[in-house]
This record gives sequence, C-alpha cells and structure tokens, in this order.
Amino acid sequence: MKILMIGANGTIGQAVTQELSKRHTVIKVGKSSGEYQVDLANKESIIDLYKKVGKVDAVACAAGSGCFLPLTELTPEQFAAGLSEKMLGQINLVLIGQHLLADNGSFTLISGVLSDDPIVLGVNSSTINAAIDGFVIATAIELVRGIRINVVSPTVLTESTEKYGPYFRGFATVDAKKVALAYSKSIEGRQTGQVYKVY
Amino acid sequence: MKILMIGANGTIGQAVTQELSKRHTVIKVGKSSGEYQVDLANKESIIDLYKKVGKVDAVACAAGSGCFLPLTELTPEQFAAGLSEKMLGQINLVLIGQHLLADNGSFTLISGVLSDDPIVLGVNSSTINAAIDGFVIATAIELVRGIRINVVSPTVLTESTEKYGPYFRGFATVDAKKVALAYSKSIEGRQTGQVYKVY
Repeated sequence: MKILMIGANGTIGQAVTQELSKRHTVIKVGKSSGEYQVDLANKESIIDLYKKVGKVDAVACAAGSGCFLPLTELTPEQFAAGLSEKMLGQINLVLIGQHLLADNGSFTLISGVLSDDPIVLGVNSSTINAAIDGFVIATAIELVRGIRINVVSPTVLTESTEKYGPYFRGFATVDAKKVALAYSKSIEGRQTGQVYKVY
Repeated sequence: MKILMIGANGTIGQAVTQELSKRHTVIKVGKSSGEYQVDLANKESIIDLYKKVGKVDAVACAAGSGCFLPLTELTPEQFAAGLSEKMLGQINLVLIGQHLLADNGSFTLISGVLSDDPIVLGVNSSTINAAIDGFVIATAIELVRGIRINVVSPTVLTESTEKYGPYFRGFATVDAKKVALAYSKSIEGRQTGQVYKVY
C-alpha cells in the first residue's frame, strides 16, 4: 500500500511510520519537514499535495492542534482560528481526497481524549476532537468506492509527559507505539466509522 | 428569572417558552420574528442583542442548523458555511455572553442525535452536534461566577415527521414538549456540563 502520512515527523507520526513502513510505502508529509509539505489550514495547499503525490491507498493524519487559552479570555476570532488545522484541515483532507483516493482506500484522522474528558484551557480542543469524531462516523456511511474512514483518539503520550503533563494531571499516559497500532488497525483492517480510543 | 430564548418561534422554542413562561420572564428572540432579532452567523449581531436585552439569567438556544448535502458533492466552502450558525453562532453566544450573564446564570445550547447516529446527507450536522457537545463539557469546567452550561440533544421531533421523516427512517420521534423539559432541567436545576439526550 502507498500511505500518505501527514505529521510524519511528530511523535505519533514517527511511531506510525515505523509500524507501517515494515509492510508498506509510507510517504512522509510535514508542515516544513518530510518528502512533501502541507499547510492543513490552507485548502489550496491540500489540493496541491494530492496533485504532487498522485493516487494513494491511505491517508493518515497525526497533525494539527487547537488553541489552548483560558475560556474567560477566549475570543470568537481566536476560537475560529483554532479550528483551521486540526478540525477544518482534516475535514478538507477528506472532502477533497475522497475523489482522489484509490478504490478501497482509507482515511485515518486524529482527535483526542479531550472530547470526553476536558481540561482547563482545552475548550477549543474539546470542540475540535468531538467534531472530528462526529464527522468520521457520519462520513463513513456516505463514502463510495469502498473507501473507509476511522479516527484515532489518543490520550496524552508518555513521550509528551514533560511538555504536557502539567495540563493533564491525573491522566494515565499511553506510548506512541500503542497509538500507532490503532492507525495500523484502521489502515490494514476493514473497519469503518470507528473512533479508536487509545486511553 | 429573565430568560433569553433564541429561536423562540421554532417548534422547540415554542414548547420551551410555554413551559418556562409559567414561572419566568421569557424574552423571545428570532432571526426575523420575536421581540428581538439576532443573526447567529454574525458576531456583531450577537453583541448587539446582548446590549439591547441587558443582563439576563439564562440564555437558551434552539436555533441554527447545518447544511444537508451529499458527502460526494460537499465542498470545503459549503462545509465551512454550514458551521456558521448552529456551531460558531452558539459558541459565540457563550464566548461573548459569559461576561454579560448574571451571576449563577446558565447557558443551554442545542445539538442533536446525529452526533451519535448518522444519516445520509448529515455529515455537516453530525460534526456540528458533536462539536457543541464537546464545547459544552469543556466550557462547564471553566465558567466563573457560578455560571453553568448544558446542551439539549434531541432526536427528530414528532411535530417534524412530515418534513424530516424521510431523512430519519427508523428513528423514534420525541414530542417537543419532552425536549422542553430538558431546557427546564438545565435552566431551573443546578447541573452543569451535561449533554441531555432526548431520544
């Protein structure tokens, strides 16, 4: 399989690449690193990426984040800007890519634990993660040509404890390697419309 | 209590108004009807509404909808436009209103069954409804001055069977009167961060 891995240089992206490159061709995509670059916030950049890579069998995304700001300071403008990559960018990857993916291909998006289990500063991210989960279960029933879609919803990574631990007190962490298995299940299995909660 | 009812002229809004006006002052707001008007897609219109009505104890919303289009035809532009009322409009009602509501006031938003249970043409709405649920559980833990927030997630209304039934085959319907009880529980109770599923 030819797999487009968006966010390949991140902690999850690296683990997914390691797992899948044993058996498949993984094309690494990053914002500034990788074989190809994409700016998820820019629709034209997504169209351009698909043009450059040609037909692929799977699109896996482990990129994009929301804004982390206190609710009392959060403005409509900041909130909307926070949606541009992880929410709208991932949705556009699917809306545009549905016409370009190989038959029986798959999309695997990323959401996260905050959809269920909120933290202070996380209003934007809770919204984004829940939105992506909702998008995926609905998209799954309308995709054609055997194309599937799932979403991986991880909790905080063990590898990110130093950086994000203070914001996620009391959350058990998970190794990126375990998160990568959910991508493998999505891409190499036949399930669709699933939210794989890795927590 | 002084309750701002947005979407007061809709089937749910009328039922909520009937239930709550027995005990409270309900200020009816609509897009073109009611005592005051608001365009949820327009941030300035929301600011203007709050200025006109002054301090209120509760904001209840039963307005806004997404776009209903086949996934295979859905464009990034149509998808984004579909978010402007029910998703971004309701979020802006809270982001702006959090500074203006009375102490111990409440927000009650609306989502819907499609967050869990998708239908054909419903990708945009599933995304919106899930996003609002995620927004509410996260916002609840950061609101100050005793302000609460909940969301009512109804299934198809019995009253809307003729109009929407063909899109919701196999869904049991619920009376608007029952949906109105969830608004009452949210506004007149003390719970916060709840998704009241009325289905």
